[in-house]
Amino acid sequence: MIRILVTGGTFDKEYNELAGTLFFKDTHLPEMLRLGRSRLDVAVRTLMMIDSLEMTDADRGLIVDHCRAAPDSCIVITHGTDTMVETAAAIAGADPAVGAKTIVLTGAMIPYAFGSSDGLFNLGSALSFVQLLPAGVYVAMNGRCFEWNRVRKNRETGVFEAV
Amino acid sequence: MIRILVTGGTFDKEYNELAGTLFFKDTHLPEMLRLGRSRLDVAVRTLMMIDSLEMTDADRGLIVDHCRAAPDSCIVITHGTDTMVETAAAIAGADPAVGAKTIVLTGAMIPYAFGSSDGLFNLGSALSFVQLLPAGVYVAMNGRCFEWNRVRKNRETGVFEAV
Amino acid sequence: MIRILVTGGTFDKEYNELAGTLFFKDTHLPEMLRLGRSRLDVAVRTLMMIDSLEMTDADRGLIVDHCRAAPDSCIVITHGTDTMVETAAAIAGADPAVGAKTIVLTGAMIPYAFGSSDGLFNLGSALSFVQLLPAGVYVAMNGRCFEWNRVRKNRETGVFEAV
Amino acid sequence: MIRILVTGGTFDKEYNELAGTLFFKDTHLPEMLRLGRSRLDVAVRTLMMIDSLEMTDADRGLIVDHCRAAPDSCIVITHGTDTMVETAAAIAGADPAVGAKTIVLTGAMIPYAFGSSDGLFNLGSALSFVQLLPAGVYVAMNGRCFEWNRVRKNRETGVFEAV
Repeated sequence: MIRILVTGGTFDKEYNELAGTLFFKDTHLPEMLRLGRSRLDVAVRTLMMIDSLEMTDADRGLIVDHCRAAPDSCIVITHGTDTMVETAAAIAGADPAVGAKTIVLTGAMIPYAFGSSDGLFNLGSALSFVQLLPAGVYVAMNGRCFEWNRVRKNRETGVFEAV
Repeated sequence: MIRILVTGGTFDKEYNELAGTLFFKDTHLPEMLRLGRSRLDVAVRTLMMIDSLEMTDADRGLIVDHCRAAPDSCIVITHGTDTMVETAAAIAGADPAVGAKTIVLTGAMIPYAFGSSDGLFNLGSALSFVQLLPAGVYVAMNGRCFEWNRVRKNRETGVFEAV
Repeated sequence: MIRILVTGGTFDKEYNELAGTLFFKDTHLPEMLRLGRSRLDVAVRTLMMIDSLEMTDADRGLIVDHCRAAPDSCIVITHGTDTMVETAAAIAGADPAVGAKTIVLTGAMIPYAFGSSDGLFNLGSALSFVQLLPAGVYVAMNGRCFEWNRVRKNRETGVFEAV
Repeated sequence: MIRILVTGGTFDKEYNELAGTLFFKDTHLPEMLRLGRSRLDVAVRTLMMIDSLEMTDADRGLIVDHCRAAPDSCIVITHGTDTMVETAAAIAGADPAVGAKTIVLTGAMIPYAFGSSDGLFNLGSALSFVQLLPAGVYVAMNGRCFEWNRVRKNRETGVFEAV
C-alpha cells in the first residue's frame, strides 16, 4: 500500500468566488485518483492544507512524524513547490526509521482546479517512482525525479533542476 | 533521451464536429507534455493514428521495427487499450536488439480531449516507470506497471489486471 | 418559468470507455445550469436521448405534444444540430396552441463532456433569447437567433446561417 | 456590430505560477468567442484589466467615454462583479448620447481559466440580451437580466438579485 500525505500547496488551491481569492478547502487527491483511474492501493491522509511558504518547523515535524509512524514503506507527499526541498531535507535528516522508506514529494505549478494544471501528470509520475525507487527521500516534478539533496527549484523559471 | 512512439488509441481520439463522430487527427502528445510541464528529453514520433482494434500484423511489425531502430534505450508507446497486450507480446517476441531496451506501453480509457481523461496521469506514470525499470516490455495503466506476459485488460471493467 | 425539453443531440453525447464510442446516458443540462450558476426558474424534462439524424416523425410529434401541453409560455429545446430546423418547422406547423408560445431550439457542435464544447455558450444564449422574443419558433446557435423558416445549417462549415 | 469593452474582473483572472497568486494578463474574450463558435459581428476593445474593487472614478469615466464614442448601438461590458452595479449607474447617469444605446454589463464568479467557470454561460447570455433589449443600461448575470437601478449583488451568496 502507498501512503499519500497531503499538505496543501498549489495542488489544492481553489477559487473563493465570494472573496475573489485563492484558498484551501478540501484536498483534490481522491478526485485526481479517480480521474486517473488509479488502481493502486493507497491511503490518503490530510496533514494540513497550507501554502508551503507558510510551513513552520512544527509543520515539518508533523510531516516527519507521519512518515515515521506510517506502516507503509512507500510514501508520496503532496506539497507546495516553494519549500518542497526544505521539507525533503527535514525528512531525510530524521532518524533511521524514516530513512528505511521510499518517500517522494511532488506538487504542481498550476492548481488542479484550473484546466491547465500539471497536477495529474505529476501525481501519476510520483506514484510510479515511489513503487520502484530504493529507500530514500526524493522530489518528483516535471517528469523527473531527484534525490532530496541534489535538486533546487529555480525561482525564475519555476522548474526543478539538478544541483 | 526517451523515445515516444505514437500509434493513436483513445488517447488521441477527437470529436469531428461536422460528422458527429470520433476520429483521429494529430496526436495530443506534445500538448500533454507541455501541460505536464515535462522537462524530460523526449523525441515524439507518430507511427500511425488508429484504433488498436484495427491494428494489423503489419502495423505491429512497424512498431517493432521502430523499437529496434531507435537509438534510445527507453521507449514509451501510446496505444489503444484493446490490443495493447498483443502489441507488447509482439515486441517482446522480437529479436534481442529490442529486448535490451525498456519499453513501456500506455494508453487512456477516455480521450485526452475530454475533460475527464485519465491520459495525463498515465503519461506521467509511463514516463516515470520507463526511467527506472530494467530492460523488458511493460504495460503501464491505472498507476500500475505489469510485465507484458502478466497482464490482461478486463473487458468488463476496463481495468488492466495481473494474470 | 422556462420549460427545457431535452432530446439529446451532441450536447449530451458521452464517451463510453468500454466500447470506445459515443453514446447517450443522462442529460448534462442540470450540471450545465449549475456551472452557469443559473438563477432562472426552469423545469427540465428529458423527452428522448437521441442523435437528431435518427429522429422520426413520431419523435417530432412527441416534442410538439410537449410544447402544446407545457403550462409555460417560454420553452427551450436542446436538440441535435443536423435536423434542428426540421423539428422547428414541425413545431411551427402545429396548431395555434403551440404558436402562442416562444420556443427556442439550441444545441452544440461539440459535446459538453469535451473541454472545448460550445454548449454552455449556446445554453446561456438560448435561455436569454427565450425571455425576450415574441411568440414564435426560433433557432439559437453561434450567438445568433433565427426565425425557424429563415435558417439552415451549412453542412460544410457546421454554421447556422440566414436564408 | 456589437462592441465588447473589456475591463478585467474575475472573467480574466489567471494563475501566476511563479508567484502563486491570481493576476491579469490578456483578456480571454477572443478565446471564449471562439469556444462558443460565436458568429456575431463583434469588436473587442480592452480598456483596462483590473479587479473591479480597484476601479476608480477616472476608470469609470473612461468606460463612459468609450460607451459614448462607440459607433455601435449594442455594447457588452465585461466587468468584475463587486462594483458592476456602480459602473452601470455611472453609465446610466451620463449624457443622452450614451442613453440611446443598449449596454449590458456581465461578468463571472469563477475565472474562465478554471474548469468550473460560469463565464461562457454569462457571455452567451449577455450577447443575446444586448441584441433584443431596448436602449438602456443592464446587468446580465446568472441567466437573468436586470435594469441597472433594479439590481444588487448579494455579497453573502454571490448572486445578483432584483431590488
